[in-house]
Amino acid sequence: MIKAGIIGSTGYAGGELARLLLQRDDIEIKWYGSRSYIDQKYASIYRNMFRIVDDACMDDNMKELADQVDVVFTATPQGLCASLVDEDVLSKVKVIDLSADFRIKDVSVYEKWYKLTHASPRFIGEAVYGLPEINREKVKRARLIANPGCFPTCSFLSTYPLVKEGLIDPNTIIIDAKSGTSGAGRGSKVDSLYCEVNENIKAYGVASHRHTPEIEEQLSCAAGKPVTISFTPHLVPMNRGILVTAYASLTKKVSYEEVKAVYDKYYRDEYFVRVLEKDVVPQTRWVEGSNFADVNFKIDTRTNRVVMMGAIDNMVKGAAGQAIQNMNLMFGLPENTGLKQIPIFP
Amino acid sequence: MIKAGIIGSTGYAGGELARLLLQRDDIEIKWYGSRSYIDQKYASIYRNMFRIVDDACMDDNMKELADQVDVVFTATPQGLCASLVDEDVLSKVKVIDLSADFRIKDVSVYEKWYKLTHASPRFIGEAVYGLPEINREKVKRARLIANPGCFPTCSFLSTYPLVKEGLIDPNTIIIDAKSGTSGAGRGSKVDSLYCEVNENIKAYGVASHRHTPEIEEQLSCAAGKPVTISFTPHLVPMNRGILVTAYASLTKKVSYEEVKAVYDKYYRDEYFVRVLEKDVVPQTRWVEGSNFADVNFKIDTRTNRVVMMGAIDNMVKGAAGQAIQNMNLMFGLPENTGLKQIPIFP
Amino acid sequence: MIKAGIIGSTGYAGGELARLLLQRDDIEIKWYGSRSYIDQKYASIYRNMFRIVDDACMDDNMKELADQVDVVFTATPQGLCASLVDEDVLSKVKVIDLSADFRIKDVSVYEKWYKLTHASPRFIGEAVYGLPEINREKVKRARLIANPGCFPTCSFLSTYPLVKEGLIDPNTIIIDAKSGTSGAGRGSKVDSLYCEVNENIKAYGVASHRHTPEIEEQLSCAAGKPVTISFTPHLVPMNRGILVTAYASLTKKVSYEEVKAVYDKYYRDEYFVRVLEKDVVPQTRWVEGSNFADVNFKIDTRTNRVVMMGAIDNMVKGAAGQAIQNMNLMFGLPENTGLKQIPIFP
Amino acid sequence: MIKAGIIGSTGYAGGELARLLLQRDDIEIKWYGSRSYIDQKYASIYRNMFRIVDDACMDDNMKELADQVDVVFTATPQGLCASLVDEDVLSKVKVIDLSADFRIKDVSVYEKWYKLTHASPRFIGEAVYGLPEINREKVKRARLIANPGCFPTCSFLSTYPLVKEGLIDPNTIIIDAKSGTSGAGRGSKVDSLYCEVNENIKAYGVASHRHTPEIEEQLSCAAGKPVTISFTPHLVPMNRGILVTAYASLTKKVSYEEVKAVYDKYYRDEYFVRVLEKDVVPQTRWVEGSNFADVNFKIDTRTNRVVMMGAIDNMVKGAAGQAIQNMNLMFGLPENTGLKQIPIFP
Repeated sequence: MIKAGIIGSTGYAGGELARLLLQRDDIEIKWYGSRSYIDQKYASIYRNMFRIVDDACMDDNMKELADQVDVVFTATPQGLCASLVDEDVLSKVKVIDLSADFRIKDVSVYEKWYKLTHASPRFIGEAVYGLPEINREKVKRARLIANPGCFPTCSFLSTYPLVKEGLIDPNTIIIDAKSGTSGAGRGSKVDSLYCEVNENIKAYGVASHRHTPEIEEQLSCAAGKPVTISFTPHLVPMNRGILVTAYASLTKKVSYEEVKAVYDKYYRDEYFVRVLEKDVVPQTRWVEGSNFADVNFKIDTRTNRVVMMGAIDNMVKGAAGQAIQNMNLMFGLPENTGLKQIPIFP
Repeated sequence: MIKAGIIGSTGYAGGELARLLLQRDDIEIKWYGSRSYIDQKYASIYRNMFRIVDDACMDDNMKELADQVDVVFTATPQGLCASLVDEDVLSKVKVIDLSADFRIKDVSVYEKWYKLTHASPRFIGEAVYGLPEINREKVKRARLIANPGCFPTCSFLSTYPLVKEGLIDPNTIIIDAKSGTSGAGRGSKVDSLYCEVNENIKAYGVASHRHTPEIEEQLSCAAGKPVTISFTPHLVPMNRGILVTAYASLTKKVSYEEVKAVYDKYYRDEYFVRVLEKDVVPQTRWVEGSNFADVNFKIDTRTNRVVMMGAIDNMVKGAAGQAIQNMNLMFGLPENTGLKQIPIFP
Repeated sequence: MIKAGIIGSTGYAGGELARLLLQRDDIEIKWYGSRSYIDQKYASIYRNMFRIVDDACMDDNMKELADQVDVVFTATPQGLCASLVDEDVLSKVKVIDLSADFRIKDVSVYEKWYKLTHASPRFIGEAVYGLPEINREKVKRARLIANPGCFPTCSFLSTYPLVKEGLIDPNTIIIDAKSGTSGAGRGSKVDSLYCEVNENIKAYGVASHRHTPEIEEQLSCAAGKPVTISFTPHLVPMNRGILVTAYASLTKKVSYEEVKAVYDKYYRDEYFVRVLEKDVVPQTRWVEGSNFADVNFKIDTRTNRVVMMGAIDNMVKGAAGQAIQNMNLMFGLPENTGLKQIPIFP
Repeated sequence: MIKAGIIGSTGYAGGELARLLLQRDDIEIKWYGSRSYIDQKYASIYRNMFRIVDDACMDDNMKELADQVDVVFTATPQGLCASLVDEDVLSKVKVIDLSADFRIKDVSVYEKWYKLTHASPRFIGEAVYGLPEINREKVKRARLIANPGCFPTCSFLSTYPLVKEGLIDPNTIIIDAKSGTSGAGRGSKVDSLYCEVNENIKAYGVASHRHTPEIEEQLSCAAGKPVTISFTPHLVPMNRGILVTAYASLTKKVSYEEVKAVYDKYYRDEYFVRVLEKDVVPQTRWVEGSNFADVNFKIDTRTNRVVMMGAIDNMVKGAAGQAIQNMNLMFGLPENTGLKQIPIFP
């Protein structure tokens, strides 16, 4: 039995972690951390848990937690996890951080985009970027996982094979992303009210969203050279889901079959990445509630560009599901343990 | 391994049956029946099933199906199941009918409300109304299950204890129900278009909805006398969920604790019925994707009435989940096998 | 040119007042009051007003306002208007209060349901309940209008003719109401977040909602005797609209034509109340953005009850539109001036 | 009094035309054409029109219509208008075609993308592309207007100034567009059902959408040379609205003020185009129900690109409103007559 703790369990990602872990027989959640709701019953915050969870919320005591559990998930705003980990903690417990604290290797880039001073930069080098499809072996041996952002996960999986194989010029990549509203979190802001989001679509963080350097760092690594991209997220009136539509110029004339073969080369054996059939577009509804990433592409011979598309559930493959995928690897379990949910529809 | 067939597998309820059954190790779906999509890949209709189901859709041949499987689910419009079953079929295979064909014991009532001639009235008496919370023992021994309607399931579970115990006058019951749009099915009608349903609420089938006699028959049985009720469903702009708000006059002065004790008496040991805490209202989001029915009540001393409320996911406890709950009982399995999904949120 | 001021102009009802008044040539808005946004450009709060309104928000100074304008609308939480009016103010300016302060004649009922001490009870008697379809002549002569609540407006218009004519027993009335989310206002609360409201329906204020005594007082007046009703509102995932489904026992056997004649008697000459054709149900989408109230009914001979239904746009006929309808009457204008918008669809 | 006829009055665009025209005192709709609903009351199709329109639907007889009215709007699928106009018709009546029949000057391009043989190519040259912000003077003198497509209107208004002034390389333009569901029309297709659209986002017509050549032709005209672009529309779960996010490489280093000045140069005097303030993004909710187009831009110095954004209501500025704007010009009326609706919110 693996004992787990969740710091930040009352946010949407924390709630999804709890939901997914509670359906397993081999995991026990020992700690529902939540600064805002200490001592309140967890099931009074998330009433879907009524009669399933009897625990009350606890504080964010990482030290105590490290003595009690085998793995800690931090699903909190940026900065907290970096302030809680130290050598003592990491020597006792595996930490999977769903915030951005350890995603970006260049601490100055992190501090510039996030406007924070990093509290424990010495662990950045050790932390593994937890995208198992790319870093599987490193994840298995990691003590500290930087769980990828929702947009970077979807953007990277959609574009990685063509960047890696040099089929596209990476500096021409333009990523137009669309997200459901759960990505904005459970904080009470006017902009997140039902009447403000419903019947509306807008871009946000134009040319300034903090997931940009994360995507660039990973694509640079794949390209073997520095990559600069355009990234624009949009807020869509739906609860869950991210759709990425990415554009790039082809470096040579290619056929559908050639590009398909490249995607297949990287994803054929990946359980969670589904390269769709020709002319079938990814749609968020076909991955909702699952850890799947659906990807596909379309060659535009008129413009010599390729349109790369990907869809994930931002709460699952974009957050809690991927964190559990990483946990499975770290504990030597089959990677899809507890993650075989078929997308729910309608 | 239990072998299962689904007639009507490409409707929403059929799709939900497939989704829930495919996540089990002890069930194999051998037959995806669908008149409309014969020979098409099932995963091309429901793309959530891509890489999970490789089968193509087949016709509605109950005879052939009865030789190949252990249980047949019929998730089709009214009339079809009644026309397909006979003694030969029922001697070979268990049949769980999600349509209304065998729900109503009085064939004349069925024929009047459904405007159909019943094709096999001789099996009505044998069919068991598959609400396990009431008919558990009968379900276990049944060959033919009449799986309850979505509104009747939610209406009955919300009101049954107070009717059974005589705390309310059953002829004063008024049921105002609200349903997500998946209840209208996957047929292409102008009234079901996105732009017609979105940003709208309306009543339908006022004083004439066909679930009325089904609710009345079950409540009459509970009351031990004929019961006539008012029932009005409404169409709500959401995919899943049924909420019932039921009103009735109390037969005597009662306290919160007394009424709570009555609900607890009937549901304390029921896995799928959750009697909520005082003043907590049932909400469809807290049961979405699960087989739970959340119920609660409020006494209105000013009017001497009680307001009884219930929420289910119409696709699960209101259709596919309850069908599987019945199947579990018929095959001697724990009743909640494959049905322990925690409600998904948000 | 009528000069108008709005106290509480940055709430949803205040915004709707501004939107409707700005489209008229005979009105000038001189004062956009808003405690929360003083000195901020109104069009930076409501960007639909960009290039239409250049004013900044001002404080709630009723005294100063009374010197500058001909009519003041108060679209604020309960209690504020009562604290701002006095004889001096009312001698200078007409006041139309969209809060509940002056709706209920019995101050003890108001104070009990609203848990407030009324700051100016001496004006309750003078205030006219601004439902023009009932109180038209009184409205014309009023200095102070208590603009009706959204639920009471729809509930009352749906049931009034049958109560007034004695066709139903008023103490059997059960009102099940459904509201869009704009009714919850623009305050930032977790319960009003997109992800909490979307894909959900719930009842709220069960047996305790503050619109109950308002409905009862008006129905008592129509019935000529004290009336007690059941009233349950529900929150629906849509922006605008209220639907009322009301049930009551008939006092005698009546035909469709007889009941229709009663509705026509009261509403035939009403511009804003549309009695629909037989078997056509009111739907919120068919009144959205307009000041219409669509009503209809269905006789249920099986239960000897009648189901009365009504739909309004809660922001228009349920708030700002009705306030302007009252203003028109108070200033001797045709009642539908500036209110002939055809419902917007889809 | 201008007499108008609408061919295709029961589609969503036809309904919006009717709604907008009916609110004017200077227009009389004489003909509600609809093949599907001949002889049915128009208000039984669009119940928002109850008690406002008493007419029944009529057939598509353009000849008869030309004798009765001053202007005909054709809001029908492609091909119909081209088959109905001839010299006789155009000599009697002004025709505003909301379909694509006369939008593209090169008939071979039209026939290739629309897979139709054009029935009256001789009128293509005469037809004026009805984007008043660009072609105002030509519109005033036109007999036949090709009313622009919804995506082209929004795409063009967002990018035109920078193309015209040479600030961007037009062949680097990538347009990622998002549309509400009313754009898909009122036809009953499974893909347009509520449960299929809700909680989902997808691209469609990738690298093949028929609005691509229309956008390219107009941008080529602005650039003074052939332009090829990438265009990808997406379906968003909302009723109304189009958002365009367009990307292009800058041809030189420019400041915010320089780019702003270019937008202002073209739109300062345009009533319907609002260039937003710095860092304010266009959102569909702020133009809903209005004829406004909100545009803005963001310079991305990291990539040397500019992100151009625009929002319109696809039913108004993207269809019916723009058609009426054209009609106003053709009849010598102020361009914004009957089109000053303030966007409705929420």
